[in-house]
Amino acid sequence: MKLKAKILDLESPMRQIALNVVDGRELGLNPGDRVRVISSGGTTTATVEFSDTLVKQGEVALFENLAEELAASPGDEVEVMPTERPESVEYIKKKMKGERLSSDEILSIIRDITSKRLTDIELTAYVVSNEINGMSMEEVEYLIDAMVETGERIYFDSSPIMDHHSVGGVPGNKITLIIVPIVAAAGLKIPKTSSRAISSASGTADTFEVLAPVELTAEQIKNQTESVGGTIAWGGTVGLAPADDIIIRVEYPLSLDPYAQVLASVLSKKKAVGAEYLLMDIPMGPETKVESAQEARRFARDFITLGSRIGIHVECAITYGGQPIGRAVGPALEAREALMALEGKKVPNSLWEKSTTLAGYMLEMGGIVRPGEGKTMAEELVKSGKALDKMKEIIQAQGGNPDVTSEDIKVGKYTCEITALEEGYVEGVSNRTVVKIARAAGAPYDKGAGVEIFKKKGNRIERGEVLLRIYSDHQWKLDRACKLARKHTPVRIEGMILERVPRIHSHD
Amino acid sequence: MKLKAKILDLESPMRQIALNVVDGRELGLNPGDRVRVISSGGTTTATVEFSDTLVKQGEVALFENLAEELAASPGDEVEVMPTERPESVEYIKKKMKGERLSSDEILSIIRDITSKRLTDIELTAYVVSNEINGMSMEEVEYLIDAMVETGERIYFDSSPIMDHHSVGGVPGNKITLIIVPIVAAAGLKIPKTSSRAISSASGTADTFEVLAPVELTAEQIKNQTESVGGTIAWGGTVGLAPADDIIIRVEYPLSLDPYAQVLASVLSKKKAVGAEYLLMDIPMGPETKVESAQEARRFARDFITLGSRIGIHVECAITYGGQPIGRAVGPALEAREALMALEGKKVPNSLWEKSTTLAGYMLEMGGIVRPGEGKTMAEELVKSGKALDKMKEIIQAQGGNPDVTSEDIKVGKYTCEITALEEGYVEGVSNRTVVKIARAAGAPYDKGAGVEIFKKKGNRIERGEVLLRIYSDHQWKLDRACKLARKHTPVRIEGMILERVPRIHSHD
Repeated sequence: MKLKAKILDLESPMRQIALNVVDGRELGLNPGDRVRVISSGGTTTATVEFSDTLVKQGEVALFENLAEELAASPGDEVEVMPTERPESVEYIKKKMKGERLSSDEILSIIRDITSKRLTDIELTAYVVSNEINGMSMEEVEYLIDAMVETGERIYFDSSPIMDHHSVGGVPGNKITLIIVPIVAAAGLKIPKTSSRAISSASGTADTFEVLAPVELTAEQIKNQTESVGGTIAWGGTVGLAPADDIIIRVEYPLSLDPYAQVLASVLSKKKAVGAEYLLMDIPMGPETKVESAQEARRFARDFITLGSRIGIHVECAITYGGQPIGRAVGPALEAREALMALEGKKVPNSLWEKSTTLAGYMLEMGGIVRPGEGKTMAEELVKSGKALDKMKEIIQAQGGNPDVTSEDIKVGKYTCEITALEEGYVEGVSNRTVVKIARAAGAPYDKGAGVEIFKKKGNRIERGEVLLRIYSDHQWKLDRACKLARKHTPVRIEGMILERVPRIHSHD
Repeated sequence: MKLKAKILDLESPMRQIALNVVDGRELGLNPGDRVRVISSGGTTTATVEFSDTLVKQGEVALFENLAEELAASPGDEVEVMPTERPESVEYIKKKMKGERLSSDEILSIIRDITSKRLTDIELTAYVVSNEINGMSMEEVEYLIDAMVETGERIYFDSSPIMDHHSVGGVPGNKITLIIVPIVAAAGLKIPKTSSRAISSASGTADTFEVLAPVELTAEQIKNQTESVGGTIAWGGTVGLAPADDIIIRVEYPLSLDPYAQVLASVLSKKKAVGAEYLLMDIPMGPETKVESAQEARRFARDFITLGSRIGIHVECAITYGGQPIGRAVGPALEAREALMALEGKKVPNSLWEKSTTLAGYMLEMGGIVRPGEGKTMAEELVKSGKALDKMKEIIQAQGGNPDVTSEDIKVGKYTCEITALEEGYVEGVSNRTVVKIARAAGAPYDKGAGVEIFKKKGNRIERGEVLLRIYSDHQWKLDRACKLARKHTPVRIEGMILERVPRIHSHD
């Protein structure tokens, strides 16, 4: 049925159109049914809704995001037709039954995900089946190939192309802002793409965005990497393995991370960006993604195996993730701390050690130094100011102000402090609670919001000393965050005396 | 945040509101996030969308179905707040991990489904986990209890209360329209609720609606059953075990029917309607829900076991479902054939035998006749005209015309016939293809649309004889259906000579 387009100013993550109820019935449709929508600017699949008055007969109302995708303007002719459920749903059901999928079947699923032919219901069925029934290494390899094939790809003319990735789950992990300039300063190429926060307080892309724009195209990443040596871009706009971003949309509300999908997600993005040498950071500890050494080793082994299957040399570092890295959590606070490290100022040891050690591994993997000498060279590159210079080049190339210093970074102007109610030793800092507080304060959307942690595991603390400072751009969000922090202090303090056993006087 | 309501004239199966983007960001929301919506008329959970212009700051646009549910009018004050994911999502994840759920956990899930706190994504996760990991008999019992508890219930003062149910999957199964009047004519009470077609050509509710309205309340079902002896109502409006109807919404697009959910779906509706004696019809054969005898017996055993756990005496009949029952498929055609049977006119043996046998079982279960004598009595009740009289009473009680005869029923005025291209014997009639053709012709929405099948399995057929006649209310739908029927004839004909093996003359 050919209809006249109107645009409905509604931003929705779902793909919806609305028809007049008469036209809808004429097409044999019910609200919620799947339709194919064809305009001169594109073709897509959407869910249909009915209207008596908002949409007249002969009209089709396109939700904003859909109109954009179809490049449709009001008055354009748009064709709407009922459509069958795609074949890939049968393959999803096959996985539901616990069967293995062929390379073609996986490609069919990923193609339909990428071209947005699957509904949320079908997408969820895929994710849950994958979570329960898992995938063999062979299937994951097919999955990676399919995810790479259905998106943009960058091919470099020179070699080696370096990359690193952190499995995540530990707050304050701003190491990328230190590692990338070190690696690039050593003359290696590192086209780093990062994610924005989904459930964390700040993704690397959110943090670097405090210093420069992060929305680059694949071509910009290639050119900048070739000229400057590195990028710190947001992966979301590049179009590398785009299926992943769509899948995440249903994983997030269920807090699901099917193992096969995690492996494929990382490696497909790295393959698509042209990486040849990949250093994986696998933070391990309570309240991270990877809680046990066994699990961490399984991850490492599988990353290495899959890497060699798809032509990427992978090395893995299992790192301590039981509490936040460094002191700062939240976009501006983390950007400031990373700049301080590059400026040679004093930063917490946890941040310095982790960043320079991992950067050092990459220098060794890239053949710049002999094994065992990487960390020293990484430290040298910072101390000599070369890493900071490289950082400024990267900031400038991405359109930021290269003269920025750590003192220029604006953090939230509303602050409050949480102090110790008793003396003792810090037994631990809860990753999860720190993130909750930072998010309550407005992170990651309010760049200035976040938390600074002054006492970490093993530190001695006196009554009244400051444990953390909370920053926010809004008074009401600060109040909310402080209330939360007072109720659930993320810094656990334990006195040295665990229990006093009184001496019992026996009168017998 | 308190906002002024406006109503968005959009009928959607999803629960959506739209906020101005400024208010949305202020609340810390993203499009697609979950919100709690509170009006003076009710409270519910919805998904949020953003708008720049359609919704002004200070306003909230409620999609039509949501406004109805909240009993909200334009200008009303409505509160919108971000809301956490309900606890039941954790129990769904527990089932995803293959663990058993407690009675409280299952109740929590079903309560959140019924009060529409779960999104499609969460609902799908529940259904898929159930499909893959299954449920123990104990869990199914909890599920039934939870589904009964979260809806309307009917309590009768007298006993026995009879009921029957068909597991479905076989087209033309209009037996309820014959069984209910027989059982009620014998003095038994049968508060029958039925479903509308989801993927079939006509549900019993669609078929009976040709004769009388089917949208009764629980109270009407009770009163009519007590005064007339029976009802044939649509289960969808009664509010018995309403969780089921919500769950079906995500099962249907995936063609999923988790075994535990099927058991619970049937038995919860029967428990809620007050049934004490239940006869299950389990059609078995190719292209039905139950394809093997083993599966049919498992179903029967589990229905009986669960019935005794929840206080319903269940008996099961495994019936032949390998081809359509009777001749007619489609709402009006089926209503006409059922009336013909009650009027004592000649109907296909498959319909007559099945209806009177099952009705006979119910007369025996209800203690009206001795075992083995039910079928004879059922046939007597038809022959004497008592069943037809009772049918007229039921039609009248539900607001239809009691004087209707089979000749009055209007069927589609556009027809075409499919004839045999060759002679031979009918090897089988495809359930699935018959349904596809009837739906292409407009069933179940166009009441007059459907198919009449003149040749069934084992029948001798000559070239040029009519195999089926297709009916439609619209010429274009008829054309579509006939094209489909000519391409995929549902009646498979096999010549008696299977293969001709020519004699080979050897010249050696």
